[in-house]
Amino acid sequence: MDKKDYAEWYLEAVEAAGLSDKRYPIKGMNVWTPYGWKIMSLIDAGTRAEMDATGHDEVRFPLLIPETEFKKEADHIKGFDSEVYWVTHAGENELDVRLVVRPTSETAMYPMFSLWVRSHQDLPLKVYQIVNTFRYETKQTRPFIRVREIHFFEAHTCHADEEDAQRQIEEDLGILERVMRRLCLPYHLLKRTDWDKFPGAHYTVGIDTVMPNGRTLQLGSVHHYRDNFSIPYDITYEGADGKHRHVHQTTYGMSERLLGAIVSVHGDDSGIVLPPAVAPFQAVIVPIPKKGGADEVMDAALGLEAVLREAGIRVKLDARDERPGNKYYYWEARGVPIRLEIGARDIENGVVTFARRDTGEKGTMAADSVVGGVELLMEAISESMREKAWEFQRASVVDIADMGDLPESIVRFGWCGSEGCGLEFEETTELKMLGTPYPGEEYDGKCLVCGKPTKTAAYAARTM
Amino acid sequence: MDKKDYAEWYLEAVEAAGLSDKRYPIKGMNVWTPYGWKIMSLIDAGTRAEMDATGHDEVRFPLLIPETEFKKEADHIKGFDSEVYWVTHAGENELDVRLVVRPTSETAMYPMFSLWVRSHQDLPLKVYQIVNTFRYETKQTRPFIRVREIHFFEAHTCHADEEDAQRQIEEDLGILERVMRRLCLPYHLLKRTDWDKFPGAHYTVGIDTVMPNGRTLQLGSVHHYRDNFSIPYDITYEGADGKHRHVHQTTYGMSERLLGAIVSVHGDDSGIVLPPAVAPFQAVIVPIPKKGGADEVMDAALGLEAVLREAGIRVKLDARDERPGNKYYYWEARGVPIRLEIGARDIENGVVTFARRDTGEKGTMAADSVVGGVELLMEAISESMREKAWEFQRASVVDIADMGDLPESIVRFGWCGSEGCGLEFEETTELKMLGTPYPGEEYDGKCLVCGKPTKTAAYAARTM
Repeated sequence: MDKKDYAEWYLEAVEAAGLSDKRYPIKGMNVWTPYGWKIMSLIDAGTRAEMDATGHDEVRFPLLIPETEFKKEADHIKGFDSEVYWVTHAGENELDVRLVVRPTSETAMYPMFSLWVRSHQDLPLKVYQIVNTFRYETKQTRPFIRVREIHFFEAHTCHADEEDAQRQIEEDLGILERVMRRLCLPYHLLKRTDWDKFPGAHYTVGIDTVMPNGRTLQLGSVHHYRDNFSIPYDITYEGADGKHRHVHQTTYGMSERLLGAIVSVHGDDSGIVLPPAVAPFQAVIVPIPKKGGADEVMDAALGLEAVLREAGIRVKLDARDERPGNKYYYWEARGVPIRLEIGARDIENGVVTFARRDTGEKGTMAADSVVGGVELLMEAISESMREKAWEFQRASVVDIADMGDLPESIVRFGWCGSEGCGLEFEETTELKMLGTPYPGEEYDGKCLVCGKPTKTAAYAARTM
Repeated sequence: MDKKDYAEWYLEAVEAAGLSDKRYPIKGMNVWTPYGWKIMSLIDAGTRAEMDATGHDEVRFPLLIPETEFKKEADHIKGFDSEVYWVTHAGENELDVRLVVRPTSETAMYPMFSLWVRSHQDLPLKVYQIVNTFRYETKQTRPFIRVREIHFFEAHTCHADEEDAQRQIEEDLGILERVMRRLCLPYHLLKRTDWDKFPGAHYTVGIDTVMPNGRTLQLGSVHHYRDNFSIPYDITYEGADGKHRHVHQTTYGMSERLLGAIVSVHGDDSGIVLPPAVAPFQAVIVPIPKKGGADEVMDAALGLEAVLREAGIRVKLDARDERPGNKYYYWEARGVPIRLEIGARDIENGVVTFARRDTGEKGTMAADSVVGGVELLMEAISESMREKAWEFQRASVVDIADMGDLPESIVRFGWCGSEGCGLEFEETTELKMLGTPYPGEEYDGKCLVCGKPTKTAAYAARTM
């Protein structure tokens, strides 16, 4: 696998790690194999813990949405109508009202929110769900990155006013920070341009990470809706003053692209490299049998496994009848953060040999403090994966002074903020405007298009 | 709520506990509210732990199945064609091949199994998923019991031969026993008649529980498929002898009806009663404020909450500004197994007052050993709920000697095993044949229909 050719490398790395099977007979609807699903479940578990800790309630809304509800918010349907799946028949019957297979759940949830929210005491309403969403992608599909059945996290909130909704956005960004820290992933927060925000949103903040090929991948987004949905869906509450008002709403969504980013950002020529927090196996033990009897080595390996498992470390003993070298290769491709080797000489010396997946570094740790040793190593690995990834992301932002000869990376430039200049930039460069930094960064320059002085920088890139 | 009128009571109990919202604009597709979803998640967690411990791998297959794959097994499609949802359009386009919204996943999984299984070393293949399935129900819907979007657990396995598949069935029944023990639910295992087995199955064992109205509810089933699916889906393996053979398969499924059964079996006139293992809150603390200052009581309540939470007990401190009586009523309706009350007198006496939700029994426990006290109480509650439920189930089986004047319960009678007698029995009594006990029970009598001597008893009932 050669990561220099990222597009090809990505497919090979996903395949070699056994994360997904794309031979299912519908293009872009892939099978989550046990290993891939386990990683995704560990990612979800982290998100769930953050949501629960911030007072969000987990719910499950139906998959299907009546066309009549779906069409209530005009901008929203306009954004989705070319890419939704329609259920039109049940058994032998044609349905009176066609049903949309959820592309996202605003239009499923909001008719219910209208029933749930009565008084200011019901606010804020904070719910989330982890479900699959469906988009009829016409572009080329790619596991985790562009699929038609999308494993998706979505939080939806209702607030008494715009300011409280704004506070929710800040809370969401705190959650995001902690989720991404676990995954060792860097990201940009970019407030999307008005012509690119989510259909129906007041504003959208995109969460973007740069891929090895210099293109950006949108991992998720946070939206402030103001009352754009609560008016058509009639979500009102009675204030303490007895007056009825429309709620202000937000949403926060992230998808299985998180896993696509883990593969892309951390992987190397040997395959994927998993952050310890979401690795199904944080350490794999490979016994190195000695000639003429491996009992002692296998006993030591079993003991090591028991000690680590007892300490809550996800560990796998690879006891297969295979050459150690083949096992190394196998687990490297699966991204296991730490390999522990144990042979006759290690036993004699009272040590365990380790190898880090991220750097390839090898060393030994004392056998009698292996739990602490592995825990320290996991922290060091996480920290180093995080730093390396952030460093790459920082280096990938290039300031440009004109629209010619563009680098293969994210570009930054002065922008007066007008739609005219933005669209002209996009047309000339064939890059996509990602928007402006959120919450903002210092800048002093001129609009790259019209030359007007500006305090705002815009970011643009090719996107995945 | 009066449980004597079970049908009405059930809806009231579900509503009062806040388990589900059935006002979603598609009949039979209900919203899982936070409390209901939490219980279902705890049920799922128990199932998942059992599956993982028996070497099953969790996977996720796509929701949609091409009509071409769906139709490969002729009996199977015949069983489902009147009750599946069809996706026919995507965006503005009519699809070339219509897509079925999964009613169960045999036809989604088996084309992939055909790729995954190559050699005898790939066997047994044991996977499961927890997903939603879809059936276009035309009968009256009822939360958890008869819905159109069904939260579903399904395990699928492939084996080298019929005997190994049979061993899987035995393992499944062991898992079932442990799952049901946690839920304090009794059940019958009944081998379905040939005319009622799952479409495509060699045989089907139904898992039935009796409801308060004497009708039975099928909670799940276990199927031995032999090679009935592996032939049309071409799932073969190369044996150690170099010969290619078709695998033998099994499936094991259970649905959200488990929650419907918990509500129905354990509930009483005050609402639902939750088994401690799946109660989102195992204990609720209600402080009893004393006149003229409740600080001391609230401090003690907070201390109690901290101690119990630290011990891993799911506990809720109800600190709302409400009369204690209202709180009792509120948490009773939500089925919380243990209520802990703490007032000035309790503090003086160094005790905590408890009330059991299942029996209403009240008492006190020493404040300094409250963790042990609550744990013992949970065990006692579980054991007593289990016994009571099994006792009701045992009493609900009535031997009958003729087909007239039937009791409102499960009936048992001699059956010669012929389809003719079985169908005549069903037609005459308007009961449904549930089948014969699995693995079998001693019986010596005569066929109720034809009078021929038989060693087999059949069970029949009205079903939900």
